[in-house]
Amino acid sequence: MPSLSEIAHLIGSSVFEDGIDIAGVATLEEAGPRDLSFVGSESYLPLLAQTQAAAVVVQKRLKVPATWNRPALMVDDADLAMAKVLELFAPPVPRPPVGVDPLARVAKSANLGSDVAVGPFAFIGERCRMGNRVVIHAGVFIGDDVVIGDDCELFPHVTIRERVTIGSRVIIHANSVLGTDGFGYRWDGKQHQKIPQIGTIVVEDDVEIGSCVCIDRAKFSVTRIGRGTKIDNLVQIGHNAQTGPHCILVGQSGMAGSSKLGTGVVVGGQTAIRDHITMGDGSMVAACSGVAEDVGPKQIVSGTPALPHRQTLREQAALRHLPELRNQVKKLAEEVEGLKG
Amino acid sequence: MPSLSEIAHLIGSSVFEDGIDIAGVATLEEAGPRDLSFVGSESYLPLLAQTQAAAVVVQKRLKVPATWNRPALMVDDADLAMAKVLELFAPPVPRPPVGVDPLARVAKSANLGSDVAVGPFAFIGERCRMGNRVVIHAGVFIGDDVVIGDDCELFPHVTIRERVTIGSRVIIHANSVLGTDGFGYRWDGKQHQKIPQIGTIVVEDDVEIGSCVCIDRAKFSVTRIGRGTKIDNLVQIGHNAQTGPHCILVGQSGMAGSSKLGTGVVVGGQTAIRDHITMGDGSMVAACSGVAEDVGPKQIVSGTPALPHRQTLREQAALRHLPELRNQVKKLAEEVEGLKG
Amino acid sequence: MPSLSEIAHLIGSSVFEDGIDIAGVATLEEAGPRDLSFVGSESYLPLLAQTQAAAVVVQKRLKVPATWNRPALMVDDADLAMAKVLELFAPPVPRPPVGVDPLARVAKSANLGSDVAVGPFAFIGERCRMGNRVVIHAGVFIGDDVVIGDDCELFPHVTIRERVTIGSRVIIHANSVLGTDGFGYRWDGKQHQKIPQIGTIVVEDDVEIGSCVCIDRAKFSVTRIGRGTKIDNLVQIGHNAQTGPHCILVGQSGMAGSSKLGTGVVVGGQTAIRDHITMGDGSMVAACSGVAEDVGPKQIVSGTPALPHRQTLREQAALRHLPELRNQVKKLAEEVEGLKG
Repeated sequence: MPSLSEIAHLIGSSVFEDGIDIAGVATLEEAGPRDLSFVGSESYLPLLAQTQAAAVVVQKRLKVPATWNRPALMVDDADLAMAKVLELFAPPVPRPPVGVDPLARVAKSANLGSDVAVGPFAFIGERCRMGNRVVIHAGVFIGDDVVIGDDCELFPHVTIRERVTIGSRVIIHANSVLGTDGFGYRWDGKQHQKIPQIGTIVVEDDVEIGSCVCIDRAKFSVTRIGRGTKIDNLVQIGHNAQTGPHCILVGQSGMAGSSKLGTGVVVGGQTAIRDHITMGDGSMVAACSGVAEDVGPKQIVSGTPALPHRQTLREQAALRHLPELRNQVKKLAEEVEGLKG
Repeated sequence: MPSLSEIAHLIGSSVFEDGIDIAGVATLEEAGPRDLSFVGSESYLPLLAQTQAAAVVVQKRLKVPATWNRPALMVDDADLAMAKVLELFAPPVPRPPVGVDPLARVAKSANLGSDVAVGPFAFIGERCRMGNRVVIHAGVFIGDDVVIGDDCELFPHVTIRERVTIGSRVIIHANSVLGTDGFGYRWDGKQHQKIPQIGTIVVEDDVEIGSCVCIDRAKFSVTRIGRGTKIDNLVQIGHNAQTGPHCILVGQSGMAGSSKLGTGVVVGGQTAIRDHITMGDGSMVAACSGVAEDVGPKQIVSGTPALPHRQTLREQAALRHLPELRNQVKKLAEEVEGLKG
Repeated sequence: MPSLSEIAHLIGSSVFEDGIDIAGVATLEEAGPRDLSFVGSESYLPLLAQTQAAAVVVQKRLKVPATWNRPALMVDDADLAMAKVLELFAPPVPRPPVGVDPLARVAKSANLGSDVAVGPFAFIGERCRMGNRVVIHAGVFIGDDVVIGDDCELFPHVTIRERVTIGSRVIIHANSVLGTDGFGYRWDGKQHQKIPQIGTIVVEDDVEIGSCVCIDRAKFSVTRIGRGTKIDNLVQIGHNAQTGPHCILVGQSGMAGSSKLGTGVVVGGQTAIRDHITMGDGSMVAACSGVAEDVGPKQIVSGTPALPHRQTLREQAALRHLPELRNQVKKLAEEVEGLKG
């Protein structure tokens, strides 16, 4: 159990008091008398009156009320401090032991690196190549000819279809699917004929993919997830879509076929990007939007169809007044009619 | 096979005729001559002319046409009557037999109650505690230190990650995931650094969770699903989100991180709730909306951004006339110009 | 490795040059000197200046620049040509061998046709009937009394609950769930009481279902997916919903309970259809829409609530000018006031 002064040292804060051991981390409401808590913004300051927390970490620009008589660890960057503290208290993730579980099925032609762990009911196909220290949890499916780098972790019930390539330090959370056929058909006059989807997927290094995410294989060539990109739960990535490095896709968003994100693009939750659309480097689209046209670098857009965010705000503000505007125009028309008469 | 008079007795209706055995329940269109059907609203009355149903259950305020010469069971509450009839005809859900399947993997340190059933290819981790009569279907994954109450049922391919706590009488449908890391990163100038997600999830009693639902573990403290809350398929619940008791979340809706629902809140399908937003007790948000500000108790909101529903309706009505309003203003401007000249 | 002249013959194009063997198919950007590529629309023509492709397939109406000195295979229907070429290069899908894997669990009372393949960790319940040449990949769950036709393929971690019926030549991609209880409750004054969902699902012939799709069983009678309908990833189909034949449901769309699509209806991505709503034959709804009223045959609708697409476009165009319209009306009011004075 770390002491408060150890924590203060870790996060670069001076400490007000010592000899306190911290048992855990909790919100202000739920903290017990041995927990550390956080005040990340002004709106949380009133909760200090009730919290039982032993001490709090506070953003330097905030003013702690004079009534607070327990330690307050002042920091420049509360997010960074929190990340460091959470690492200190993070319990280890349970993993299958190194080696192949007797109830897993690993093809003889698969080539696993050193210190790989494969849980029960996992399936690893022919000619798979896997780096070192990869963790394959119970019930994962990895098809033939899949390539996985070092230090990856695939959680239960993940499905990686044949020929997909995954870099190093990639995390894929439970029940996600990589490599489903892209959604492509051709109407032959009688029915939708399936267009073969013969391409694959490349997931670059340091990508993290949430749960129940679907990434489709390309019609031909590749669907690509750029280095360091982070994908939240229930996101859909269509065939031949591409993200640049360091993108963020929030939950339930979707990229249609052949859409493309530059570097560091942020896509809000439940937002859709139309097929063949490009979003430039550093651009952002708000939640609940529909991007139907290309977005330039560093542009911020919102709405359906997505427009520059300022314009959307201006239109929405005007829309709030539209019912009264109609009445005003009606009255004006009557007045003009009167003036004409 | 129950007789019609037994059914009439069950649902508190007087019966018009007897000696009819009912084989099943079907819609008016699909009912055969031995089926019972339902007329829940006026719009279904015309279908009585064609249906082959042996008899129908009808809401009392509706007027059955004089041409209908088979039994009509009149009831005050058609929904309640239907629920009772469906229970009568409900076939049992197939379940694995009580005991642990030889092809399941249950940790020695796990503690299962009496009459627990564990299907093949299920995984139960170290130190799990489980109440009585829990049903774990084939292929379920339960991580270490998970606690589950009595009479729960987990359908195939559900993933419960480590340290999650689940109450009694909870149903979780196939392929849902509880306990994925919350979606939290910190940009360090070069890349998104993962913020450890060390909290957990508490699912209270009598909750039902649909298929492909994702509930993330808290950054710290807990993500909480309140007692009696019902969650439809493909719903996303972010880290530290909380629902009160008896909420309804319709399919493909999403709660972002630290959002909060009071008691009995209803969230429509494909609706998103922004992070840190609160919806008060008894409030509702319509389908296809985006809630970006707090919603008061009993308020009904809709649209993106969500506004009081009446205002949204008023704005939409005005929007329907906006193209003609523009023309009207143009004409008015010309007239004013004329008057000024 | 097929020669270019063989490919030209296959797609009905005259060939400009011969003796070239084609190694694969790639986009213009990614093609190597032995790959064939495609120019499907005018916007791709500039890429011909840089591509390394050995040859390109080009839509006849496009004008290949004079600087292009490698073979260009001109075709009437680029989509059809591409489909044929992709079939030529499509690698086989890896499948479990015919027979039942020793690590699968198949009920004794199940009845499998000839040449059925069942992978490891698959579960097949009591009294299931399955046609010939069905492929059940690793980790699939099929409940009791399920009926599956000939030539179906179910990818890993698919869950088919009890009593569901599936036609022939149906493809279901990884981690989808068919047969979850419909989302139906009745408030009894204290809590939401579950309404039994005793119906089932019928999936007709030639349907393809993406990954992480949820199709709920009917309250009673059936939820039906019509012949030849194609469903993309992460789609939600509520209880008693019905699609006609040859519908297209794009990713993350949803049909609420008892909604109904006619023949050949197209539903855009992230679009929701309200419960009990009908869309007529040949109708379409754009992406990111919410259909709240019935849609007539061949109608094209968009927006939330969905309106005829032309009207939505007209309203959106007017909305773009709303802020200036407000200013114009304000100025007009001042002028009228001046005229009155």
